[in-house]
Amino acid sequence: VHNGIEYAIMELLAESYDLLRRGLGLSSGEVAGIFAEWQQGELASYLVEITPPILRRVEEKTGQPLIDLILDQARQKGTGKWTSQEAMDLQVPTPTIDTAVMMRDLSGFKAEREAASQALQGPSPAFQGDRPAFIRQLGRALYTGMVLAFAQGLALLRQGSQAHGYQLPLEAVARIWRGGCIIRAALLEDIRAAYQTNPELPHLLLGPHLGREVVARIPDLRAVAATAADLGRPAAGLLVSLAYYDAYRSARLPANLIQAQRDYFGAHTYQRTDLPGTFHTHWEG
Amino acid sequence: VHNGIEYAIMELLAESYDLLRRGLGLSSGEVAGIFAEWQQGELASYLVEITPPILRRVEEKTGQPLIDLILDQARQKGTGKWTSQEAMDLQVPTPTIDTAVMMRDLSGFKAEREAASQALQGPSPAFQGDRPAFIRQLGRALYTGMVLAFAQGLALLRQGSQAHGYQLPLEAVARIWRGGCIIRAALLEDIRAAYQTNPELPHLLLGPHLGREVVARIPDLRAVAATAADLGRPAAGLLVSLAYYDAYRSARLPANLIQAQRDYFGAHTYQRTDLPGTFHTHWEG
Repeated sequence: VHNGIEYAIMELLAESYDLLRRGLGLSSGEVAGIFAEWQQGELASYLVEITPPILRRVEEKTGQPLIDLILDQARQKGTGKWTSQEAMDLQVPTPTIDTAVMMRDLSGFKAEREAASQALQGPSPAFQGDRPAFIRQLGRALYTGMVLAFAQGLALLRQGSQAHGYQLPLEAVARIWRGGCIIRAALLEDIRAAYQTNPELPHLLLGPHLGREVVARIPDLRAVAATAADLGRPAAGLLVSLAYYDAYRSARLPANLIQAQRDYFGAHTYQRTDLPGTFHTHWEG
Repeated sequence: VHNGIEYAIMELLAESYDLLRRGLGLSSGEVAGIFAEWQQGELASYLVEITPPILRRVEEKTGQPLIDLILDQARQKGTGKWTSQEAMDLQVPTPTIDTAVMMRDLSGFKAEREAASQALQGPSPAFQGDRPAFIRQLGRALYTGMVLAFAQGLALLRQGSQAHGYQLPLEAVARIWRGGCIIRAALLEDIRAAYQTNPELPHLLLGPHLGREVVARIPDLRAVAATAADLGRPAAGLLVSLAYYDAYRSARLPANLIQAQRDYFGAHTYQRTDLPGTFHTHWEG
């Protein structure tokens, strides 16, 4: 689960880098400066910290930024995949992690992507908005995505702990991660505090402090998602994180239609909001 | 894989229903009329066809639309999950299917969603745009999502066929599905034709006809995604389908940063675009 969260955060950072580099047309050095500034605030974390030196590294022979010469095919050792597969077995939604695994897989289809980039051309509008405002929004959207990645992973650990009788103390998990690992982040102190206050907290978004912090930044995530869609930049992790947030806070989802369809074509039955029991309708006729 | 595609299409239909019902504030009967109109055109399919009678069904005792009384918790028998887990093992991206599985899981957390709907309140702006134009765009976005769901499933079948030596004739698969099953759709005739023209077609988007049809409708999917984000309606399947499209047509993805980070913290090495071989950088110092 640590590594699943790691995949998710790395995907969110890669999408942010892409929005700045190709969306706004900034240089690698300029993007490095933005990550370095982010490292001074609420995004402070190991993975943000190592990004500026990566983006500033110059390849000696060509004098080019080394990052521009690195092949865009992400490899993996399977630990993110295990997280997603286990989440599906336990029926815990972890979409930011799943999407990060998916994007690593998609990156491997380099030849198809090159063919598709010719076949599926579309407008690539230049960014027309307020750059400093967008950069600030992106940092806040990224914070939200990171909270949601941790929230999904910790909800999975909680469910796994219940299913397998692990009795995992989530406050200690957050404290250990904060102490030193690839996903260590200042944010983990707030996560630890949330579980200290309520060891049985079902979901990080239901903790008062982090819930409030996320609510305050959701307009930024909305704006970034709309910009990514408009510019045609692939930002699956950011987009799915927003959709997950909006679904999680929906007292009513349209899953009633799914249940009705399942009952229509397969007599799988459904439950009702107004009556106990299990129901089946003879839909035809 | 048939059932994985079925999950994806059902999720896309549920999101469309939700955008019309809660996003635009239409009645169940009005939404039924829109689905019935869609059934007359390029969206013609079994799952679209059964939606109007479902939405028009009146519960006898209360006189209310039955759909409004059905609990929004989608159940599953695991076949969508198997599709996503197998896709992850074969490293084939199937995000629209994965997201449909995730959303069924998320629908199960009804009590948490009810609590979150109180804790995570946000603006719920009324739709201010052109309603007939949005409804037309939504139909075209839905068509695109359906093509992408089939494209993902068929890419998975192709990879599975290669991995396991099945020698699956994908034209026959499309023809059989078209003949009669839950995902039968007029669209499958175009899919069958694409594989007839090129039995080794790596991806449906690379077939000239369907690629062109999707390119023409991507602006509609972009507009619908932006509207869903703006209105706060959960549309994970539509959003991730758009992000998948934009990633698939990206000759360069930001996975180079992921590879650099992996090499930084784990010496996992990377490849380069300008030179053959495998490389490692001493990033620190």
